[in-house]
Amino acid sequence: MLRNRLIDGVRRIKPILCGGQSLRSLANGATSKLTTIEVDDRSGIATLSMNLPPVNTLTMELMHDLIDSINQIESNKSRGLILTSSNDKVFSAGLDLNEMLNTDVERLRLFWTRFQDLWLALHLCGLPTAAAINGHSPAAGCVLATACEYRVMLPNLFIGIHATRFSFVISKWMMNSYQSVLPRRIVERALNQGKLFASQEALDVGLVDEIACSKEEALSKCAAFIATFDKTNPVARCLTKRMCREPDVRELLQDRAADLKECVDYVTTPLFQEGLCAHLEGLKKRK
Amino acid sequence: MLRNRLIDGVRRIKPILCGGQSLRSLANGATSKLTTIEVDDRSGIATLSMNLPPVNTLTMELMHDLIDSINQIESNKSRGLILTSSNDKVFSAGLDLNEMLNTDVERLRLFWTRFQDLWLALHLCGLPTAAAINGHSPAAGCVLATACEYRVMLPNLFIGIHATRFSFVISKWMMNSYQSVLPRRIVERALNQGKLFASQEALDVGLVDEIACSKEEALSKCAAFIATFDKTNPVARCLTKRMCREPDVRELLQDRAADLKECVDYVTTPLFQEGLCAHLEGLKKRK
Amino acid sequence: MLRNRLIDGVRRIKPILCGGQSLRSLANGATSKLTTIEVDDRSGIATLSMNLPPVNTLTMELMHDLIDSINQIESNKSRGLILTSSNDKVFSAGLDLNEMLNTDVERLRLFWTRFQDLWLALHLCGLPTAAAINGHSPAAGCVLATACEYRVMLPNLFIGIHATRFSFVISKWMMNSYQSVLPRRIVERALNQGKLFASQEALDVGLVDEIACSKEEALSKCAAFIATFDKTNPVARCLTKRMCREPDVRELLQDRAADLKECVDYVTTPLFQEGLCAHLEGLKKRK
Repeated sequence: MLRNRLIDGVRRIKPILCGGQSLRSLANGATSKLTTIEVDDRSGIATLSMNLPPVNTLTMELMHDLIDSINQIESNKSRGLILTSSNDKVFSAGLDLNEMLNTDVERLRLFWTRFQDLWLALHLCGLPTAAAINGHSPAAGCVLATACEYRVMLPNLFIGIHATRFSFVISKWMMNSYQSVLPRRIVERALNQGKLFASQEALDVGLVDEIACSKEEALSKCAAFIATFDKTNPVARCLTKRMCREPDVRELLQDRAADLKECVDYVTTPLFQEGLCAHLEGLKKRK
Repeated sequence: MLRNRLIDGVRRIKPILCGGQSLRSLANGATSKLTTIEVDDRSGIATLSMNLPPVNTLTMELMHDLIDSINQIESNKSRGLILTSSNDKVFSAGLDLNEMLNTDVERLRLFWTRFQDLWLALHLCGLPTAAAINGHSPAAGCVLATACEYRVMLPNLFIGIHATRFSFVISKWMMNSYQSVLPRRIVERALNQGKLFASQEALDVGLVDEIACSKEEALSKCAAFIATFDKTNPVARCLTKRMCREPDVRELLQDRAADLKECVDYVTTPLFQEGLCAHLEGLKKRK
Repeated sequence: MLRNRLIDGVRRIKPILCGGQSLRSLANGATSKLTTIEVDDRSGIATLSMNLPPVNTLTMELMHDLIDSINQIESNKSRGLILTSSNDKVFSAGLDLNEMLNTDVERLRLFWTRFQDLWLALHLCGLPTAAAINGHSPAAGCVLATACEYRVMLPNLFIGIHATRFSFVISKWMMNSYQSVLPRRIVERALNQGKLFASQEALDVGLVDEIACSKEEALSKCAAFIATFDKTNPVARCLTKRMCREPDVRELLQDRAADLKECVDYVTTPLFQEGLCAHLEGLKKRK
């Protein structure tokens, strides 16, 4: 299995080595509706911005565009990927919870499968990845951030997986994403509490790596992190990253249907539907 | 398997949601010989005290009463469980080592199975759990403390798994319990050394979460920890806790007989019997 | 499987208990060409020195002598093993990369199998082990250090697995060795970057346990660590160590051929051969 992984790794990274498209053409041509890609001609680093007002909710469409953009950046000669938001208040508010409310099961299956796809695309991305977290990053917003290799955050924001506060039980691979960054003891407690960490707390426990004063500084710190790989061989780096992350994705890749079924079974329980309803009512009142 | 876990989780937690017994009646009626349950009417938190003089040795009977009390607290509407000792010098001195000396194999099998049951009951308890460690907590006393979600300890005490000092080789699930709290590097070294941590050392490495000056303060800090779950959905919290802890219990649940056989095989070796004998002689002399 | 491990553990440790050879005779007789064993008559601790000028490159022969020396020390009544270098500039420069350049596949298979054997012998050594790192310790030099239970390093040196800098992708068990010492987040980043830690940085992240001012002080700190096991039963300690380390070696022991095949397949790719060539050219120019 490891060997298959290696060979698969070499195959997946091939486009990076052979891609003939120039960076500039990527920068000009690669704008979908809900995401923007900008490539710095000097550094070769691609900045991928989520751009769905008001709060970058991960809808079916935004997730589609994110996957598409990640694949596009990966198959060109980019030196790294920085994920950020074009909205300075919210990085991403997380999954579109309306997709989980009284939903058609087939639609829910598509929605969850897309989220699995998005996490896999980012978590296993062959390029160096970093998140410039320039706005709040709750729930699936936090999962996207932890799928990157480095996190720089602006002050006075919050980040964390607060699923238990709206009756949701996350999947094991989301826990794995958290645990790839935080110690086990902190992960369990934070998940059980549905804890949202303030920027400084997040720095203290290691959930983010640096605090930056502005989005520009955050992007620049992310670029500096990506530059730490300059002396490495990109294929060896990519295969090493995937070896480190293989335990996180193993169970999901071996049986994606099981994760999907578990999610659908839970989401369709009255317990969750009632909890989610109350949560959405609460959000409306706060507005 | 994950799905079964979820369904099983929902089923196990049912009594918490449906139990009609009032907290007060639990508080009055639920006193077994060797443990005491007190429920705070205001907070709804149950305090479970070990009460077997002189040192809360985990005998067959004390373990029985503990399991019974945990199940009773879990099946009522308690908001959380605090484990403590009615003895201010010793939280628990650990397993009754006399049960391992020249023992009848059938009795040993019952004894070890009960210890497995006790750990499983506490480690997988659906409620928030905390330990108010108001006395020394060596060996299995430490295992009980690490099975809780939070630990508050009084000063000038010691805690740790010092099994190698009396020739014992702990089970893998006891190691998992330690490793759910401490970093891997510290776990291996502490287990190999049979290290007992002083209160302050235990705080420094994260084996305990807070130091309190009195038992009252310890209980109050435990209650404050349990209150951090107030905004979460209890079923989602319970399922999330069990997902985090599932890797710790997987091997034991899949093959309890293997762990039992391994324990019996080791305990009945002359090597262990001689080591235990010398250890018990040493303890007698110290008195 | 656990039970087999225990029984196997007891069997492997037998020579320690039954060995009749006196320590002195081991000290006098046990000098192979490329390693030296010195046993302190007072402490009973064996110091194993790598002694292959100029930089203790792990050649087929040095690895053979190391395995042989570890087995010899383990099967005598030594109280512990300290690994060090007789060269005060380099602890070990790592694997002999020439064995990977344009190599005969059969030779490569022998070479890699020997490296597996060396790591297993040191990682599972029944005695307490410590590394007195008195010189630079890159790549496989670092892997040997992390296979020990304690690391004391001299100042102004570097240590780390910088494989991605010469296009190499390490095996999973080498990652496990790193991860037995460092937190997951630091491991992934350091491996991807091919990071070499300066002594003080290594201390800060926990890759080494102490800094010493001289080789003598390093040896003395290692001896003090080994003395922390004085009150433990050596067999129980050995079995506990192996239980802690079993997850690290499980995959390799279950399928050594798979790891070997993966290594051979990767090393013989043009990608790696070209990367290695460039790296070796670079090293020559720096001289």
